[in-house]
Amino acid sequence: MSQTINHHDVTTAALELIYAPVREELSEVEQILRRELQNEHPYVDELVRYGCMLGGKRLRPVLLLLAAKASGRLSHDHLVLAAVVEMIHTATLIHDDVLDEADQRRHLATVNARWNNESSVLLGDYLFTHSFYLASTLGSTQACQIIGRATNIVCEGELRQIGSRGNFELDEDEYLEIIDAKTAALCACCCKLGAVYAAADDEKIEQLTSFGRNLGIAFQIADDLLDIQGDESSTGKSLGTDLEKQKPTLPLIRVLQLVEGGQRSELLNLLNSPEGFDRESIAPWLEQFGALAYAKERAASFADRARREIADLPQSSAKSVLAMLPDFVVMRTA
Amino acid sequence: MSQTINHHDVTTAALELIYAPVREELSEVEQILRRELQNEHPYVDELVRYGCMLGGKRLRPVLLLLAAKASGRLSHDHLVLAAVVEMIHTATLIHDDVLDEADQRRHLATVNARWNNESSVLLGDYLFTHSFYLASTLGSTQACQIIGRATNIVCEGELRQIGSRGNFELDEDEYLEIIDAKTAALCACCCKLGAVYAAADDEKIEQLTSFGRNLGIAFQIADDLLDIQGDESSTGKSLGTDLEKQKPTLPLIRVLQLVEGGQRSELLNLLNSPEGFDRESIAPWLEQFGALAYAKERAASFADRARREIADLPQSSAKSVLAMLPDFVVMRTA
Repeated sequence: MSQTINHHDVTTAALELIYAPVREELSEVEQILRRELQNEHPYVDELVRYGCMLGGKRLRPVLLLLAAKASGRLSHDHLVLAAVVEMIHTATLIHDDVLDEADQRRHLATVNARWNNESSVLLGDYLFTHSFYLASTLGSTQACQIIGRATNIVCEGELRQIGSRGNFELDEDEYLEIIDAKTAALCACCCKLGAVYAAADDEKIEQLTSFGRNLGIAFQIADDLLDIQGDESSTGKSLGTDLEKQKPTLPLIRVLQLVEGGQRSELLNLLNSPEGFDRESIAPWLEQFGALAYAKERAASFADRARREIADLPQSSAKSVLAMLPDFVVMRTA
Repeated sequence: MSQTINHHDVTTAALELIYAPVREELSEVEQILRRELQNEHPYVDELVRYGCMLGGKRLRPVLLLLAAKASGRLSHDHLVLAAVVEMIHTATLIHDDVLDEADQRRHLATVNARWNNESSVLLGDYLFTHSFYLASTLGSTQACQIIGRATNIVCEGELRQIGSRGNFELDEDEYLEIIDAKTAALCACCCKLGAVYAAADDEKIEQLTSFGRNLGIAFQIADDLLDIQGDESSTGKSLGTDLEKQKPTLPLIRVLQLVEGGQRSELLNLLNSPEGFDRESIAPWLEQFGALAYAKERAASFADRARREIADLPQSSAKSVLAMLPDFVVMRTA
């Protein structure tokens, strides 16, 4: 119990640090979100307001705002774009919860659990389309292009992941490609928007985009680790869903890469049986092949790459916080 | 049987007429769709290609192209936009099929039936995001704004419809507002894009937009009529889903507006029982209150309004076909 509280305190303290350089801007983003996500029809209004709370930590808006500040300029366009990416992120979360049949997220009932799958699908669509509309109110098509492309890649990645369900031949490279698409593309998009709308030069745009991408990969490996070994009460969401859905993630892919002969058949039998959907049955295998440690090390290496990408940016408090983010996403426990 | 074949022949002949002024352009739109909707990953590729076939009649692209021609100019941008609106329409169909748990559409298995709900949700998202990206490749933000706004209204309408499920107090005005949002907004958007990208003057843009809107309302009333009295084999889709989902549509709303006293209680009891989900149980009620004839008459009156909106446009083959469309959507049987 005291450990849980400590973790929580650490997370809160880290978030305070992360928010610090963009605190005021972030509260303006919240205002934009609140203003945009209200509706004159009570049923729609309740849903969009509820959905708006689910995003939680606002890490994607923060990423966008920090990238802008680290590029030397933060304008009103950035605030609008930060609201846009949060809506998109929330839309994907809500659709994910339908796909995962999850019933809680951030200690709240998911939309599908509290209402129904239909409302979840449509609420996600509502947020997607609203975000695109909002992006189109900026002066140029640049934001629409960057966001349209990135979100399409996210969907492609999610579809590939479904296509790879139950495919225990999936190798690490393919896994990395999939998480690059389904998660890292949106993080990269946030950083790119921050830099592009700060009129940064091409090299800086490239560095920040690549930072976001590597950060996103590190984040997703860590997130997949949490699903396999995290604590439901501190993460506030349903865990173990990857195993249930026969979705091979890095720790399991590592074991499958190393295990041979009769042991391999034994593991495959287990994975294809109902017991294989259970975190406890898989734990000894992960232990034996050092798979959790391996996955952590891989996450750390992408975090490291992210940090190196922005090493040349001029010193600023925004840059310092960006440089902290990779460790934060890899070490988080919730 | 011979009657079904006749209906089919009539529909085919009418479609030939409708396509005639834009036949070449429509085949270019098909090429754009085929080019845009392919993917290097086999699972994604199979899904997007399959989804692409589901749209069927391409009525929204035709609407956009005809509006352009009737405005005096059809450019390459129109072809791209026609592909965009078809993708959006297909995305909403695919998500609708998840919501309705429908298992066939246009004589084909729905994506949710052939694959699963998850792939359907993500395929819809894929098409949405791809369409937005494609719209953003045009020179200005105008298309993104018009499309972003219209699609958001579509989602709002769909959500309102879910919120009104089982609400047998829903009156005709609210029903019309809902179908105006969920269906007519996209038809209006097609016509508006056709006119705006043909550099039509404000009055023409307004007339064509209003034409699309009234056409869409007429179409949806007719579609709701088909759900309640159509023939599954000629429509090629699952019917009776509105009753199953306790979704009050115009014929039922009409009965509920007229029925009184003990008969009203009897009907409400029926609607709230499993038998109420059955088209046969409701048929006598619709008959008694002339509700099907009433709904047909309402559809015809919106069709009439649509026709009047474009009366002042200069004569052209595109205009003649547009003027035919309202009758076509009201009289269709599939």
